[in-house]
Amino acid sequence: MRLVRAALELCVEQGYQSTTIAEIAERAGLTRATFFRYFPDKREVLFAGQEEHAALLTAGIQAAPPGATPLQTIATSLDALTATFTREQHAWGPALIATVAASEELQERDARKTAVLTAAMTSALVERGTPEPSARLAAELGSLALKRGFARWAHDERDDTATFAEHTRAALADLHVAATTLA
Amino acid sequence: MRLVRAALELCVEQGYQSTTIAEIAERAGLTRATFFRYFPDKREVLFAGQEEHAALLTAGIQAAPPGATPLQTIATSLDALTATFTREQHAWGPALIATVAASEELQERDARKTAVLTAAMTSALVERGTPEPSARLAAELGSLALKRGFARWAHDERDDTATFAEHTRAALADLHVAATTLA
Repeated sequence: MRLVRAALELCVEQGYQSTTIAEIAERAGLTRATFFRYFPDKREVLFAGQEEHAALLTAGIQAAPPGATPLQTIATSLDALTATFTREQHAWGPALIATVAASEELQERDARKTAVLTAAMTSALVERGTPEPSARLAAELGSLALKRGFARWAHDERDDTATFAEHTRAALADLHVAATTLA
Repeated sequence: MRLVRAALELCVEQGYQSTTIAEIAERAGLTRATFFRYFPDKREVLFAGQEEHAALLTAGIQAAPPGATPLQTIATSLDALTATFTREQHAWGPALIATVAASEELQERDARKTAVLTAAMTSALVERGTPEPSARLAAELGSLALKRGFARWAHDERDDTATFAEHTRAALADLHVAATTLA
């Protein structure tokens, strides 16, 4: 959406700290009041979609076949989320990653987003009958795979959703192999 | 330390939001200026020790025997950290957990602390030659085990450090079993 794009453009041009809500709204061709209809503060514009992402992951887990293992269920769930990403989000990817990496405040918000998505996946797995701590661990792997998949997709010239799904599934598979070789 | 204890007492009595830095300092028998010598803001007093914890985990990983697996290394590292906890920290445990759980702002800070500790363990494992993503995954298991171990210890009547170590190692073992049964 326009406010997110405007915010990222300004962060790239002048940094997150120097960017004001008024500037973001102006760049988006909107008023400051309109900004506050969508977001409570400047930080939130960069984490737009957290609740929808959590809902998509939950729905993906609920839709997985009854006999699916926790990891297969997580893979289905990640597919459901990655399928909603657009070429525009791919194009913003490197700017978003660099902006978050440059600010402790944004890293903190990012850590909360990860915790929210992990908690949503854990709850949905537990509701399917996956016992703790398997549910939590599978959800952690899912969140890590998503983060790694996004970073790889952002820096991949292929900008289609299938590529995001592919990187995320590959990251999940790598993490699963790693999980069997820790002891 | 006195400021941490004072802050937790006030959070239990009147909630985190209603507690001011002036009240925390007064309860601790210190001035507001002294508070700011130790902590930049009210939130940080509840996360005192983050850098020391990260350093202890790193040192624990560096001190593990050369042939130790990633998970054995993490277990050694967690022992090095849990050994520094006191009976007083055990006594504060339930109050700290309840205070953080009641505030989104504190949950966010807690998520960052977890991310910082996980990153420290990941780096220390990579320096020992553990490949990614095994290092990251072992570190994630370590952070989860620490969180679960602390929660169980906080609600355990036995208040010695050995009990914290025992709960944390048991949580790590549970997570490892879970890791082998996800697919």
